[in-house]
Amino acid sequence: MRAEILSIGSELVSGQSLDTNSRWLSQQLGALGVPVAFHTTLGDELEDHLDAFRAAIARADLVVMTGGLGPTQDDLTREALAQCAGVPLVEDAASLEAIAAMFARRNRPMAERNRVQALFPQGAEALANPIGTAPGIWMAIGRALIAALPGVPSEMRRMFADEVVPRLRRLGLADRFIVHRKINLFGKGESEIEAQALDLTARGRVPEVGITAHEATISFRITGGGSTEAEALASTDSTAAMIRERFGPLVLGEGTVDVPEALAAQLARSGATLATAESCTGGLMASLLTAIPGISSSYLGGAVTYSNASKSELLGVPPGLIEAHGAVSAEVAAAMAEGARARLGATIAVSATGVAGPGGGTPEKPVGLVYLGLATPAGTETRRLEMGPERPREFIQIYSAKTALNWARLALLDA
Amino acid sequence: MRAEILSIGSELVSGQSLDTNSRWLSQQLGALGVPVAFHTTLGDELEDHLDAFRAAIARADLVVMTGGLGPTQDDLTREALAQCAGVPLVEDAASLEAIAAMFARRNRPMAERNRVQALFPQGAEALANPIGTAPGIWMAIGRALIAALPGVPSEMRRMFADEVVPRLRRLGLADRFIVHRKINLFGKGESEIEAQALDLTARGRVPEVGITAHEATISFRITGGGSTEAEALASTDSTAAMIRERFGPLVLGEGTVDVPEALAAQLARSGATLATAESCTGGLMASLLTAIPGISSSYLGGAVTYSNASKSELLGVPPGLIEAHGAVSAEVAAAMAEGARARLGATIAVSATGVAGPGGGTPEKPVGLVYLGLATPAGTETRRLEMGPERPREFIQIYSAKTALNWARLALLDA
Repeated sequence: MRAEILSIGSELVSGQSLDTNSRWLSQQLGALGVPVAFHTTLGDELEDHLDAFRAAIARADLVVMTGGLGPTQDDLTREALAQCAGVPLVEDAASLEAIAAMFARRNRPMAERNRVQALFPQGAEALANPIGTAPGIWMAIGRALIAALPGVPSEMRRMFADEVVPRLRRLGLADRFIVHRKINLFGKGESEIEAQALDLTARGRVPEVGITAHEATISFRITGGGSTEAEALASTDSTAAMIRERFGPLVLGEGTVDVPEALAAQLARSGATLATAESCTGGLMASLLTAIPGISSSYLGGAVTYSNASKSELLGVPPGLIEAHGAVSAEVAAAMAEGARARLGATIAVSATGVAGPGGGTPEKPVGLVYLGLATPAGTETRRLEMGPERPREFIQIYSAKTALNWARLALLDA
Repeated sequence: MRAEILSIGSELVSGQSLDTNSRWLSQQLGALGVPVAFHTTLGDELEDHLDAFRAAIARADLVVMTGGLGPTQDDLTREALAQCAGVPLVEDAASLEAIAAMFARRNRPMAERNRVQALFPQGAEALANPIGTAPGIWMAIGRALIAALPGVPSEMRRMFADEVVPRLRRLGLADRFIVHRKINLFGKGESEIEAQALDLTARGRVPEVGITAHEATISFRITGGGSTEAEALASTDSTAAMIRERFGPLVLGEGTVDVPEALAAQLARSGATLATAESCTGGLMASLLTAIPGISSSYLGGAVTYSNASKSELLGVPPGLIEAHGAVSAEVAAAMAEGARARLGATIAVSATGVAGPGGGTPEKPVGLVYLGLATPAGTETRRLEMGPERPREFIQIYSAKTALNWARLALLDA
């Protein structure tokens, strides 16, 4: 059983709209145990419809298509399906009635051209659309089943759930549950982590494990299957335990848990409070933390000290220290963290000062050089990061912020 | 001339990631006058690669593909291209050197498996990747030109602009210019602005004008065309001038200029400096501002005061004031802005204190209630925003932050 998704619409093919329908559909089909092999997006040319439909019908067991069911000349899904099947289009009385009733409910006159929405390839079944005018189409061509749905996301989603899924279940084609479990890690590069996980990511392993990276967070993605959801989830347990065991403190958590969420959870567990002192990260640490509901019980606040004077005024960094070592230095990073910890009365504090670029770099202090500070009851430490001057400002900021917050997490973990 | 886009990646085909690369590429190709006929997304099976590559090569003049160029076993683009062209893979010494140099610059050891990233189908040209390890591939198969780029968006975008576009121009394949001009406004709702622009957004108008909204910023999008970029741009001039004239101070600027960028420009023009005092926005104002290169000449910094004590400690808000009026009050918003302005020695300061939710609301101070403060040489003002408790935390934070920063911009504009 292999599915394909076809998204039809000139606004999709020109990049003016994002094709979120195909993403949603592939997640839904995946969860039903129906793997999706291709998504194809095409515009409003009949030739392209025929080409894409025929390719999909030839290689897939199920083709779910969205769009092209409207009343205008650009809407060619009906026509193209009839041509692929070699059958004429015929009017479906029940569908015509439903379309007329929809217009009546909205107190709008039904245009003559809406009549074409009641046309179906001969032998096809209408899929009811309770919230729009375009009914869907359910039919078989060759060995492929076809579900054609409107492109309007709310209509498409409802019709997929109410009309398509029950048909697949009845046919015994969607009898499986697939779950995806994502375990997120931070602190080492993707290739380094992958090198320690070749047994897990090997092709053909069950359950399957993939690896992805986003803003320096590395994720293992375990795909489990079973005839119930619980069974599917259970099939991932030993692999998840193996990853947690092997990578220990690098593991942040599962799902949407990234560095800030993992730190927030660790703060709550430890009963510790946190303060931040940010120069080059410019409030990004604070902003990442305060995006988390309920963080106010452990995050006290911090200072964004973009000027030298603000480092002294808000955090008590001695002006002489800045003069002696420069604002981008281990000494200033340490003083910033200590100042934030003392002034806010926090258990721990982290700081970042560096050159985020693209301007402001010098041979001694190039773009991508960042000092982090960590002040705890046990004392203050600093770290030096060198990301390389070709890195964009955005990366330097997010990588510095996440590395600093992760350092605070690890310190609490060890404490 | 007709192009196709292939996006490769199991996380795309399973719907775990959104395929934003193909959207971006089709916009770029459209702007070059190269229409895109299909986007196809496929996973990590070699058979599917061959199937999709062959279909695209047979019907398109240009195939731009992203992904599958990494160092792992799942990365099959190189192999599949070689098979489609019927040539072996050969190692490119210059690319190998560039990959090794990239690792050296990042002070990381180069894994042996990264060596495969220097393999190319015989006869192909390497496309330099200045910010990542994977070089791209440029080659012809049959009558189709192929550009294979990495899936990492920042690398893909840069390589498309620096390596692919110049090649298309040299070959005379991208000879038309379509420009999109986006004029961004802030301060009124989308429907209110649209009601004042019905003549502009009418169907069939030349140049075409659309309207979109993102995080409370409203954008007019003008599409112009011509045989040179200057001609295409000139065709949008009178419409752009009409919008600027009609909406006056609501206009932030063009392109990626949103509230923070417009404020940064206004600060530079005024020679003024700014400080921020944030409670419910939690560093978002600071973070938005410091994402802008060069902002350090006018943004001095600020405080993120999530606890009552931090409002007093960092900003000098009298504890009695917080006790009397509550942390979420006009009085505290005023004192926060005044404290930030005084302590950081800034020309102006803005503040925000409110209930971002989802918890923490009371009948008197519900979720979505936010007070803003603005302290200037002329005195201090406050504003009360009520966004409604059904708004998500994320919206309450971004809307408050943008409204506060826009207020500072308007104050400088009037000064």
